[in-house]
Amino acid sequence: MKKILTLLIACTAGALSAQTLQSPDKNLILTFSVQEGGKPTYALSYKGQEVIAPSHLGLELYSSNEVQFGEELKKNTDVNTSLYDGFTVEKVTTATADETWAPVWGESKTIRNHYNELVVTLRQKSTDRAMNIRFRLFNDGLGFRYEFPEQKNLVYFVVKDELTQFAMTGDHYAWWIPGDYDTQEYDYNHTRLSEIRAVNAQGRQANLSQKGFSDTGVQTSLMLKTDKGLYINLHEAALVNYGAMHLNLDDKRLIFQSWITPDANGAKGYLQAPTQTPWRTVIVSDDARDILASNITLNLNEPCALADTSWIHPMKYVGVWWEMITGMKEWSYTYDLPSVHIGITDYTKLKPHGKHGATTENVKKYIDFAAKNGFDGVLVEGWNIGWEDWFGHAKDHVFDFQTPYPDFDIDEVHRYAKSKGVKMIMHHETSSSIRNYERYMDEAYRLMNKYEYPAVKSGYVGNIVPRGENHYSQWINNHYLYAIKKAADYHIMINAHEAVRPTGLCRTYPNLIGNESARGTEYQAFGGSKPNHTTVLPFTRLIGGPMDFTPGIFEMDISKNNPNNHSHCNATIANQLSLYVTMSSPLQMAADLPENYERFPDAFQFIKDVALDWDESHYLEAEPGAYVTVARKAKGSDDWFIGNTTGIKGFTSKIALSFLKPNTRYEATIYADAKGADYKTNPQAYIIKKQKVTNKTKLSIPAVEGGGYAIRLVPVKK
Amino acid sequence: MKKILTLLIACTAGALSAQTLQSPDKNLILTFSVQEGGKPTYALSYKGQEVIAPSHLGLELYSSNEVQFGEELKKNTDVNTSLYDGFTVEKVTTATADETWAPVWGESKTIRNHYNELVVTLRQKSTDRAMNIRFRLFNDGLGFRYEFPEQKNLVYFVVKDELTQFAMTGDHYAWWIPGDYDTQEYDYNHTRLSEIRAVNAQGRQANLSQKGFSDTGVQTSLMLKTDKGLYINLHEAALVNYGAMHLNLDDKRLIFQSWITPDANGAKGYLQAPTQTPWRTVIVSDDARDILASNITLNLNEPCALADTSWIHPMKYVGVWWEMITGMKEWSYTYDLPSVHIGITDYTKLKPHGKHGATTENVKKYIDFAAKNGFDGVLVEGWNIGWEDWFGHAKDHVFDFQTPYPDFDIDEVHRYAKSKGVKMIMHHETSSSIRNYERYMDEAYRLMNKYEYPAVKSGYVGNIVPRGENHYSQWINNHYLYAIKKAADYHIMINAHEAVRPTGLCRTYPNLIGNESARGTEYQAFGGSKPNHTTVLPFTRLIGGPMDFTPGIFEMDISKNNPNNHSHCNATIANQLSLYVTMSSPLQMAADLPENYERFPDAFQFIKDVALDWDESHYLEAEPGAYVTVARKAKGSDDWFIGNTTGIKGFTSKIALSFLKPNTRYEATIYADAKGADYKTNPQAYIIKKQKVTNKTKLSIPAVEGGGYAIRLVPVKK
Repeated sequence: MKKILTLLIACTAGALSAQTLQSPDKNLILTFSVQEGGKPTYALSYKGQEVIAPSHLGLELYSSNEVQFGEELKKNTDVNTSLYDGFTVEKVTTATADETWAPVWGESKTIRNHYNELVVTLRQKSTDRAMNIRFRLFNDGLGFRYEFPEQKNLVYFVVKDELTQFAMTGDHYAWWIPGDYDTQEYDYNHTRLSEIRAVNAQGRQANLSQKGFSDTGVQTSLMLKTDKGLYINLHEAALVNYGAMHLNLDDKRLIFQSWITPDANGAKGYLQAPTQTPWRTVIVSDDARDILASNITLNLNEPCALADTSWIHPMKYVGVWWEMITGMKEWSYTYDLPSVHIGITDYTKLKPHGKHGATTENVKKYIDFAAKNGFDGVLVEGWNIGWEDWFGHAKDHVFDFQTPYPDFDIDEVHRYAKSKGVKMIMHHETSSSIRNYERYMDEAYRLMNKYEYPAVKSGYVGNIVPRGENHYSQWINNHYLYAIKKAADYHIMINAHEAVRPTGLCRTYPNLIGNESARGTEYQAFGGSKPNHTTVLPFTRLIGGPMDFTPGIFEMDISKNNPNNHSHCNATIANQLSLYVTMSSPLQMAADLPENYERFPDAFQFIKDVALDWDESHYLEAEPGAYVTVARKAKGSDDWFIGNTTGIKGFTSKIALSFLKPNTRYEATIYADAKGADYKTNPQAYIIKKQKVTNKTKLSIPAVEGGGYAIRLVPVKK
Repeated sequence: MKKILTLLIACTAGALSAQTLQSPDKNLILTFSVQEGGKPTYALSYKGQEVIAPSHLGLELYSSNEVQFGEELKKNTDVNTSLYDGFTVEKVTTATADETWAPVWGESKTIRNHYNELVVTLRQKSTDRAMNIRFRLFNDGLGFRYEFPEQKNLVYFVVKDELTQFAMTGDHYAWWIPGDYDTQEYDYNHTRLSEIRAVNAQGRQANLSQKGFSDTGVQTSLMLKTDKGLYINLHEAALVNYGAMHLNLDDKRLIFQSWITPDANGAKGYLQAPTQTPWRTVIVSDDARDILASNITLNLNEPCALADTSWIHPMKYVGVWWEMITGMKEWSYTYDLPSVHIGITDYTKLKPHGKHGATTENVKKYIDFAAKNGFDGVLVEGWNIGWEDWFGHAKDHVFDFQTPYPDFDIDEVHRYAKSKGVKMIMHHETSSSIRNYERYMDEAYRLMNKYEYPAVKSGYVGNIVPRGENHYSQWINNHYLYAIKKAADYHIMINAHEAVRPTGLCRTYPNLIGNESARGTEYQAFGGSKPNHTTVLPFTRLIGGPMDFTPGIFEMDISKNNPNNHSHCNATIANQLSLYVTMSSPLQMAADLPENYERFPDAFQFIKDVALDWDESHYLEAEPGAYVTVARKAKGSDDWFIGNTTGIKGFTSKIALSFLKPNTRYEATIYADAKGADYKTNPQAYIIKKQKVTNKTKLSIPAVEGGGYAIRLVPVKK
């Protein structure tokens, strides 16, 4: 249902250029106006409070000389560089939409897409160019984007800067990570806006890159909280054919401005009309739970583009992975090589170093473990040749994605896994050599089809080849989407690590079942993450889509696995269990070693039981950096799961189970921090308690910092 | 046969570091020494005359900081940036080779590869790194390259500059075109070395780019002539995995230095040991004919890499092309579009502009013409959607190489051509959008297989995408080779236009049957080329391999085809015929319109008769910029063909037919400039004369500037 109302504005009628739009529940009010000099400007309020102070909108283009496409362009086009001023309002259209759609997988069975829309057609008289700004106002926030209709004077153009402002109304608190074109794998900082510069300048985290970035640059999704208790989230939706958006803060005026990931030449987007930018989103509420429950990001993406989605299935998996991450085993096969030449190096003549993880024998151990415990799949990293020499040289021909090491018998692994009813999960580390991966992509996907691998974990570690490009620039973002679309042709699900952060594209391409694109569990073996990390992620990284966070670590003292690794996983076992619920994802790994699970079979039972896909989700408690509690109903089942992750000391979760079916008794199995549990000194102290509950039950469960709890609720058969 | 002699040199023995190497005929002498500071140095003499004065050798590398691969590299490697000094000679190896091999196609049935070789192993003590320089001295010149053996301290490295010098011994004359990373399509300049700067600075030719180039930069193959009558040609062979070499002149000291095409970051080559650079070649003789007869470039390439070459066949073809080049017709289909969105734009709904060349009906006309006149193939450009909007915007998704325009019925064209015994030649204009082409390459080649197209003309017009890359940089050169190798998998022959200039790779991949990579005949419709252009090309562009020059223009007044095009083809008809012999190529086009050939059926007969592949070739007369006369024996036949192209006024070619079989009478059909012929005012004045000749016959045939002659010799049956 979509009602459209068009208002034709007399170009001279200055008064008419101020527009307002209300959210369906009238809590949010957007105002749009064209300010002095013809500058498009918007502001947003929530329940009478200013959320975004008046902020300018627009883009700066390259002039044709700057673009340097060569002589040819100079002749054809002389682009005026401003798409940020000189505008008048030519037309205003409003509309309302209220529809419900069903995702292939996700946090709920159906999603309501309900918004009021305002489309402002702006005319720049001096150049006779038109630009639309489309605003969609939902009850939980705002989305807007720039649209460039087909027209004579704006056909091809290159974005030098997008000048979208988000003017803050005060020195809010922010949960933020530094701006970066090549990594998102930071621990979150929690500071006031005015403190960002000092923290950034203090020194950024090692082994990560921030080339060319401002000291007040931060990544999205950015979570903010005002002193008046308003929660604001800034992100983007439907990032297609454009650089990923960062935000740069003018910390005198407290104005964020969009800072788009550039390509090797510094350009942000090479566009051809008719086209549009991604949506810029402002999710806002006075209740932090609404931020987590918001579906703005998915709703602003296009509907599913795949005719057949029957082959897309959530998966729970184990993998030959944590042994390498912790340093017990290696991805590589031999130490004999100064460097590898793919297609020339003959591994059968080399001496194995004996620490290779992906051996047929070891993989079979994982297949047995998966089969025994009801897991769907087994991931194997390090199965294919090239790992002796894959990193740090921006190597072009780095992997072939098809030649197994001599000790990995792909035929036998396939046969064995199939006989046990387990699917193998492929691994494609690209080493960010994009062209090389695309050249092998068809062959690699065909190999997966041959051996019935339903899903691939792809990796983009290291600097992009072609050199000079960035992980989140337009050209490389187009690659990630190419890989997803092509995988869909082969009925392959994708879980892309180190790729651009998600922006809800899984609605359109639901075979994108996961991304990393943030600091995952592996950092617990690389020195550890902050104990409240998982209470921030739902407010930031997960706004765009599910994360392959790889939880489930039971042995926090990594030196117990590898005596040379003194890292510590800053979490309790109960916390690790909770993440299967709080970090909703159709792809969930049990990341720890089988032998560690076998030491705690009662706790492991929760991982075996937990669902991957949901009919409903209810956020019960939430405060960024402090705690998140969510209850979810398993899809097509009457079972419920509740998870709480806690990031502050001494939190006691108090929840009412009113969402349960009335007049029904459930058996609740509660996995919680035991008395004396401590993420550092006593992380394996958990208790498991069973009790009968109904929709009238209220629970009060204490959780420690870096702790939490997980509950399974099963209706009691009458 | 290869004899190897190894000399182990005591590192302290300074005297032993001077080496000399003689050519098999002892005319050429190479000297190699390590000069003060440990600088590798070479010099070359011919019959006692200095050809290359002492010249330094070596490379400069990026330091790891400069490379900016990110933190990872800095940790692993700290590359000393000099590979040009600090060397001592560790080992010297000499060898002799004398072998004969048979090319799949070419100027002769067999080729002798006869050289003496010197390999100098250099050790850089301060870094404990080794570099070899391999010299091969043939009777007709020198080839040398840098080799980087597998070693601990030189594994991955990035070439900042190659510092190979070619020190000239005087202010020679040169036939040169300006250095350029994106085009080779220049008319040749003929000046002394000292005049290069002024000519370059005067203003370079329009519509071409020389970004970042020095005013004394020139392209290879570079042809030189000394005041003492020595001919010197500088080029490279086996350009694989490296930027193409230009030469930059220090015009005070008259020293050329290699100037390698950079990538977007300025880097010349990302190398991984063991590896090597391409060969640098110096062809030298006191007889210009020897330069043309030299097989150094092919001999320095690797032997054929294809197991089966039975599917590779020379082709003579016509095409739907000259009509577009002259402006009579268009590649595009409609004027209705401001721009094209491949996959979205629906051409069936658009109004055709009526000037589209590649219509089924028009193509059938060419098929009929080809069948009637014994041509192997028909090229069709503009058959696939996208031509309304393909140039000047560095557009990424510019073509799909598979969707025909509504008025090109690919099924019917295939059926019709097959019924007439004619093969279709595919056209893939990439618009230099490299990734887009690679993404479609398999599908495009499969489409060719389906419709039995044996060959493709590929095009790389416009600036490279990814933007910032250059047409001749390492990464893009790797693309051209990728396209060739993949085409071989599909049994497809390649004729790549605007690709990097050839360097003899057709020996290794004989499905590379042609390249443009120089100023072709199309410029005769774009304002004209110099009348002596075709007397320079054999000394420059053709040193690397055959050119799809597309000769055969009979109507020199282009306005006769298209009243709006006032260009003139600066050649006589006899000259155009001669080019089928002087510009040896397994792929030859008859470029003019069928109706123009039908006006001159007697002259056209030569194009129908001329062979494409040869048992022997004899260069009879040659002077760069003035004239080239060559006789060639058709492969597997007793027929001979002679061609003369002339670039100076009033040249009378005097040749002896001593290469003919003794005691055999041949009927010679001579196509020559008629009296009063003039490339500008009277280009269609030709005479055709038949006479009987033997190997005792001497001929004296006058040719005008921009003129020439062509002869067919057929044994008279007894």
